[in-house]
Amino acid sequence: MKKVLILGSTGSIGVNALNVIRKFPDRFSVAGLTANSNISVLSEQIKEFKPQFVVIKDKSKAKELSEIVNQNVEIISSENALVEAAQKYDYDILIGAIVGFAGLTPTIEAIKRGKRIALANKETLVVAGEIVTRLVAENGAEIIPVDSEHSAIYQCLVGENLNEVEKLILTASGGPFLNKEKSFFDNATVNEALNHPNWKMGSKITIDSATMMNKGLEVIEAHWLFGLPVEKIDVVIHPQSIIHSMVQFVDGSIKAQLGIPDMKLPIQYALTFPERLSNNFERTNLPLINNLTFFEPDFDKFECLKLAYLALQTGGTAPCILNAANEIAVDKFLKGFIRFSEIPKLINKALDKIENHSNPDIETIIECDKLTREFINNLN
Amino acid sequence: MKKVLILGSTGSIGVNALNVIRKFPDRFSVAGLTANSNISVLSEQIKEFKPQFVVIKDKSKAKELSEIVNQNVEIISSENALVEAAQKYDYDILIGAIVGFAGLTPTIEAIKRGKRIALANKETLVVAGEIVTRLVAENGAEIIPVDSEHSAIYQCLVGENLNEVEKLILTASGGPFLNKEKSFFDNATVNEALNHPNWKMGSKITIDSATMMNKGLEVIEAHWLFGLPVEKIDVVIHPQSIIHSMVQFVDGSIKAQLGIPDMKLPIQYALTFPERLSNNFERTNLPLINNLTFFEPDFDKFECLKLAYLALQTGGTAPCILNAANEIAVDKFLKGFIRFSEIPKLINKALDKIENHSNPDIETIIECDKLTREFINNLN
Repeated sequence: MKKVLILGSTGSIGVNALNVIRKFPDRFSVAGLTANSNISVLSEQIKEFKPQFVVIKDKSKAKELSEIVNQNVEIISSENALVEAAQKYDYDILIGAIVGFAGLTPTIEAIKRGKRIALANKETLVVAGEIVTRLVAENGAEIIPVDSEHSAIYQCLVGENLNEVEKLILTASGGPFLNKEKSFFDNATVNEALNHPNWKMGSKITIDSATMMNKGLEVIEAHWLFGLPVEKIDVVIHPQSIIHSMVQFVDGSIKAQLGIPDMKLPIQYALTFPERLSNNFERTNLPLINNLTFFEPDFDKFECLKLAYLALQTGGTAPCILNAANEIAVDKFLKGFIRFSEIPKLINKALDKIENHSNPDIETIIECDKLTREFINNLN
Repeated sequence: MKKVLILGSTGSIGVNALNVIRKFPDRFSVAGLTANSNISVLSEQIKEFKPQFVVIKDKSKAKELSEIVNQNVEIISSENALVEAAQKYDYDILIGAIVGFAGLTPTIEAIKRGKRIALANKETLVVAGEIVTRLVAENGAEIIPVDSEHSAIYQCLVGENLNEVEKLILTASGGPFLNKEKSFFDNATVNEALNHPNWKMGSKITIDSATMMNKGLEVIEAHWLFGLPVEKIDVVIHPQSIIHSMVQFVDGSIKAQLGIPDMKLPIQYALTFPERLSNNFERTNLPLINNLTFFEPDFDKFECLKLAYLALQTGGTAPCILNAANEIAVDKFLKGFIRFSEIPKLINKALDKIENHSNPDIETIIECDKLTREFINNLN
């Protein structure tokens, strides 16, 4: 019986994680849940899964929550509550399902305690990959990726030797704008960008799919997760999102993991690895799907993907700058303050103007993140 | 340094095996080669690879060969030479690349000596799967499949647990007649049937691809190789032959092995497993291939595939009868004695008329094979 702490339980990954946990009551219990402000969903989750504690970021919501929940659950709300939850409470597996930089520090606390991290939060590895991988090794923790792409690669590498990998091939749907001209990006609306063809996800990651920054962040994540140099990480466009990623070995053989787009699969795998548990989730019918296609990515059109490769090659705090600039730029786009085509321009400016630090420690990274956000926020 | 004995070195698999061995002179040497009658190719192979011995089935050719080869090599030619070679000589790996029933007895001798078998000869497992798998376990031998489909499954299962397999999905190109109507089979010519879209192979296996008996034999082979019941072995049509086969696990995840159709890959894997060695064989370019398609197989059109499933379900000597009847029927078709559409009819007659024996020993299987061949040969 494993006790699970879900950071970000009311988001897309968090809800799917609970969908998985619900199927295996003999294997998993919920130790804790955390949310920003969605107390209506959170209170339902508390009722069903009976966690020992919950964190709610918004203090006024915490009070409201305590009034509607009539069962024994500790409700925590403080500036540092996520880190405290990861640090002090009793759990076996942390599901890092928060989007953005905020996922970093609590994840690091869980790593320091040698826990298993089911990692959906890309930013943890993107901004602090070197520190995080070192801490994982030092503390006997383990990171099992929840991103469908990295889970696919993880599954393809089981029983294989990392030294025999020739390259990783991350597949990308290409998002809603795969077949649009670059000129279209000037007038792309928020609704158009949020209309992902295959995956239902939160709005930040959906915009990242439209710019292909999502794939860029995944390239950086893969670099740290599997310890392979940037030259060995390729991206191929695969609009159907059935093949979730591939590994090509030195003998030329390629292994792929595939299935219908359903986050429950990689979440379950991260929880149960090295075991696979039988479930009744929908199966993949290849004759029904019929057709899988593949294209080279267009780096000129999807500048964010190019910028991500560049940041990884540059190293130091460049990926942190890339990520922070992107978070603010996407937020600005979602609020209607900038055009879709301006997202890579703002990121490029940040990479240009903000000083890069090599071998940064966590404090430097937090400072760099803050600085970059201010920089982008102050651009007009 | 591993010493390799190739049974059937002048055929398609044999020649490809030597193409692999040529690339790794520090890893592999050739202990022995065997051929039916092709002394021009065999003598070139002797010159290049300097085997300790060769077997040539045709006695007059053996004499001819001894006259053109002017180096130190033992030339053996006797009724029982293949079995003797497998029994008595010094080698580490046997590559079973003979087509048809003839591959069975020498392979069994190698298994009794606890050797590694790189198995391309389907019939060994099709006709005597129960005996062969028992002998492998008893003698600490190992069978690494060379068929691209079984090699794919073998690779997908590395590091996985067989108990967690939901089904095997064998891919089939569908052969040259995939898009023909069944009525076409009455007048299909030998040349049309030999015109395989993806693979260059010997004529027997190419006709088996056109009837889809090849896939049927592979289903039976997979049953014995991986110890899974017939209900867990599916076939899906995939005309491009890029995905070589797949494994679906109990959690719904699917793993696939893929690459351009090139027999050197599975041959190399069978020789080097669990290692993968770097090579310069052509790589797979998915954006160039662009499109992978999948269809359900048509069991009414491809009766041979249906008959193979039936024979596996029946068990006993039914797969042996299926295989022997097919070998003779294909031979008759290649010689112009019967129509393409008559191949399944003859096999069906044999399965109907010839007595089935459960739990057969090798003698019973050899007898059943002989009886079936006589039966089909005597049909007019």
